[in-house]
Amino acid sequence: MKIAVLPGDGIGTEIVAEAVRVLGVLDLKLEMETALVGGAAYEAHGHPLPESTLKLAKESDAVLFGAVGDWKYDKLDRPLRPEQAILGLRKNLGLFANFRPAICYEQLVGASSLKPELISGLDILIIRELTGDIYFGAPRGRRTAVDGHFPGADEAFDTMRYSRPEVERIAHVAFQAARKRSKRVTSVDKANVLETFQFWKDIVTEVGKEYPDVELDHMYVDNAAMQLVKAPKKFDVVVTGNMFGDILSDEAAMLTGSIGMLPSASLNSSNQGLYEPSHGSAPDIAGKGVANPLATILSAAMMLRFSLNQPEAAARIESAVQQVLASGLRTGDIWSEGTKRVGTREMGDAVVAAI
Amino acid sequence: MKIAVLPGDGIGTEIVAEAVRVLGVLDLKLEMETALVGGAAYEAHGHPLPESTLKLAKESDAVLFGAVGDWKYDKLDRPLRPEQAILGLRKNLGLFANFRPAICYEQLVGASSLKPELISGLDILIIRELTGDIYFGAPRGRRTAVDGHFPGADEAFDTMRYSRPEVERIAHVAFQAARKRSKRVTSVDKANVLETFQFWKDIVTEVGKEYPDVELDHMYVDNAAMQLVKAPKKFDVVVTGNMFGDILSDEAAMLTGSIGMLPSASLNSSNQGLYEPSHGSAPDIAGKGVANPLATILSAAMMLRFSLNQPEAAARIESAVQQVLASGLRTGDIWSEGTKRVGTREMGDAVVAAI
Ligand SMILES: CC(C)[C@H](C(=O)O)[C@@H](O)C(=O)O
Ligand SMILES: CC(C)[C@H](C(=O)O)[C@@H](O)C(=O)O
Repeated sequence: MKIAVLPGDGIGTEIVAEAVRVLGVLDLKLEMETALVGGAAYEAHGHPLPESTLKLAKESDAVLFGAVGDWKYDKLDRPLRPEQAILGLRKNLGLFANFRPAICYEQLVGASSLKPELISGLDILIIRELTGDIYFGAPRGRRTAVDGHFPGADEAFDTMRYSRPEVERIAHVAFQAARKRSKRVTSVDKANVLETFQFWKDIVTEVGKEYPDVELDHMYVDNAAMQLVKAPKKFDVVVTGNMFGDILSDEAAMLTGSIGMLPSASLNSSNQGLYEPSHGSAPDIAGKGVANPLATILSAAMMLRFSLNQPEAAARIESAVQQVLASGLRTGDIWSEGTKRVGTREMGDAVVAAI
Repeated sequence: MKIAVLPGDGIGTEIVAEAVRVLGVLDLKLEMETALVGGAAYEAHGHPLPESTLKLAKESDAVLFGAVGDWKYDKLDRPLRPEQAILGLRKNLGLFANFRPAICYEQLVGASSLKPELISGLDILIIRELTGDIYFGAPRGRRTAVDGHFPGADEAFDTMRYSRPEVERIAHVAFQAARKRSKRVTSVDKANVLETFQFWKDIVTEVGKEYPDVELDHMYVDNAAMQLVKAPKKFDVVVTGNMFGDILSDEAAMLTGSIGMLPSASLNSSNQGLYEPSHGSAPDIAGKGVANPLATILSAAMMLRFSLNQPEAAARIESAVQQVLASGLRTGDIWSEGTKRVGTREMGDAVVAAI
């Protein structure tokens, strides 16, 4: 089982190091190879996703990814910016199914912006389509407007689009995931305005007929953004497109108050996957040894479960993390009165010890 | 001063009736003419925005709008659905600047999902561009994919676009609004992925140079959705496109916990405007006399200020609403222990009496 380890920028190196240590004590035959990605790769090779890194990712069973990005790369041309690496990996590996759990750990209820009764026990799974939509639609660019409000003016444009098989496959992923949970899917669209999402809604409805045991409802994206704030626990599995999923999965993650705890998985149709924490590269705290490694460690657990077929090892990591939380250790982002503040390395040590 | 009164569907008739009564006791020369819109217009005339209604709206100084929509119209062809009326009015009247205040009234802090210290004193103004973006971009429709992941498959598509003058004019609106407030503008984009929003960001930055007294920052839409949950009070004026504005303005409104209190204004370049509550038609409580009319009454106040140049009359309405809240009257949506629950009509009576 081969893993491409891509730490990236900012806190990426620190948090991935802890996940790698945790994987190391599991008694599994794992071949891990590290490569540069993002700003770090740009500095060394002039490109955020060098050929060699992409090749390594392609020939691995899974990618363990840290985070990319730093303000210092903001002025680069778009194709050279760190985040292009992540878009490139998604596209080249065909990672169309993004799993973004939004879970509120009982011990961390107080970290949420929301009142405890609204967030305690939260367990949502957002499934975001990740290789289609306006992210990759063509044509896109700049041109002279020929119609609209100001014909003759300069304009910029992008194309939103979804094809039938793209919607079908992500819908199947959502219904199958729901079967393992409370059997409810909410499909989020904007069918009242967009052709793309009327099509989306129609196809999800069709696919839903193959899953009569799963309850399906539809919600407009603006309403979903509201309902997540008002009553997040009403959701179980949420399935949506790339753009809406980007916004809603981050909103839901932040609602838990502990985004430093949330892993994510991005899978292709052969279960090859990229695993990364839901949070970013946090350049402001990089190198200080204070970042929370748990989202990355839990991403490694998802990797064991989804791509490496090691559900027991995954469960060992997850219960070790639970134990560490129960013992009262906290990194700064989730610290509260009465708990013990620790750094990245100590948190990793604690998980290793608990395993 | 001519006002087109378009109550629409659901609770629209009830709440608009109260706003009209309030306008009636202000001693202003207002000519008000009522017309059908949305589902009600479809039932009577076969179209959600009949020619006669559009004509009335065009020749009025302002439109006072209730709400449109009901599940029973979900099966109609898209062009006949109630929400097409609102899109048609925006487009035909050129209402490009949508003002969506998200304010938390001190007496209603408890109604929010958020912890009181995070929401108390909230006063954000979201300015959403309303006649461009993917809402109106062409081409759109269905076709056979020629490239992408599944060439040859059926696909649906839409076009996102903004022209330079469209972005310039909404940016000016935002900077000018910020000058009357705490002089801070956050422009929300997705410049890391979309050509349209790199263009948006560049132009907002340019326009910002004309307002050196206003502080400008830029935020990605996914991050904005998170920061609204984490620390909403950090925002002052937020300016964004039509699609992102749809999502973020609803999220922000729901954060206050009292969406039944939030008015909105949509203006064109001659200050002709459409005024409507931020909430919807709530068919589940329609006809029961329990809906909160205050968002509509406050929308009428915005109308007096922005389109009819009657700031004093606007202030009289606003302070009457404050007084009524202070006296402890509440409709069901904002009711809490220790306050007095009243219906739509009684709430209207109380505002009229306070004026
Ligand atoms: C970095 C950016 C391109 C990316 C996205 O928009 O998908 C990020 O926000 C994410 O959600 O992984
Ligand atoms: C009804 C719908 C077309 C509309 C929109 O998306 O703009 C609504 O959600 C709004 O925000 O006024």
